[in-house]
Amino acid sequence: MTAEQPILQVLDRYRCAVTAKDVDAFAALYDDEVLVFDLWGRWCHRGLADWRATAAEWFGSLADDERVLVEFSDTHVAVAHDLAIAHAFVTYRAVSANGTDRRSLDNRMSATLRLKSGRWKIVHEHTSAPVDAASSKVQLKR
Amino acid sequence: MTAEQPILQVLDRYRCAVTAKDVDAFAALYDDEVLVFDLWGRWCHRGLADWRATAAEWFGSLADDERVLVEFSDTHVAVAHDLAIAHAFVTYRAVSANGTDRRSLDNRMSATLRLKSGRWKIVHEHTSAPVDAASSKVQLKR
Repeated sequence: MTAEQPILQVLDRYRCAVTAKDVDAFAALYDDEVLVFDLWGRWCHRGLADWRATAAEWFGSLADDERVLVEFSDTHVAVAHDLAIAHAFVTYRAVSANGTDRRSLDNRMSATLRLKSGRWKIVHEHTSAPVDAASSKVQLKR
Repeated sequence: MTAEQPILQVLDRYRCAVTAKDVDAFAALYDDEVLVFDLWGRWCHRGLADWRATAAEWFGSLADDERVLVEFSDTHVAVAHDLAIAHAFVTYRAVSANGTDRRSLDNRMSATLRLKSGRWKIVHEHTSAPVDAASSKVQLKR
């Protein structure tokens, strides 16, 4: 196993947790003291309870017959001792039960992870999309 | 000297380079292979030549009698061996020659640094501000 593999596994568990709308599995990826700079609405989310509530709200906002497929691309990982970073482009694609695309958006994600008691946890996550300077509007497609 | 100090020094040199509109000093902070997720316009900037040109354009867009003061707050740094991360809120404040405020905006910044030949260089930088979901417009004040 390379040093990068446990970090790629965290990204894979993120993908699965979102698609399963599994708040517990999602929250398990993060450290209790996580600080998130999320694309939407707020300058930051501090601590796991805050971030977990945001995930619960997200998953709860989806239609019952809808799920979100997550795809990472251009993923880059670096690891040194108990500190790791990952960054990637992320596509979130909402599909209906029969797999039809309903909507999708692209994000940029940067994450910091720490190895704590043998498990890698996300301690910092930053997601965004670029903003058009003329309109002040976010661009959600690469 | 603590492990964090060289990283805080990089942030301080960033601050000084922006205020001095010094493209060379600014570019010296970054690795040749830097990947930047910047708030404005584009999904990414790849490589130092690309990022340097963006800085030159930024500094060149400022009025002759104008300079930009940079302030970091809630700065967090972690270092392990040759890998470091930093994240913070950043305020960019454009002031006239006599120090009068012209405009200002807030950002969130996350950076990854690597120690190469004894010097810490930024290999990845991610800046953004949160987006209002209803209007799709970016919020530039905390």
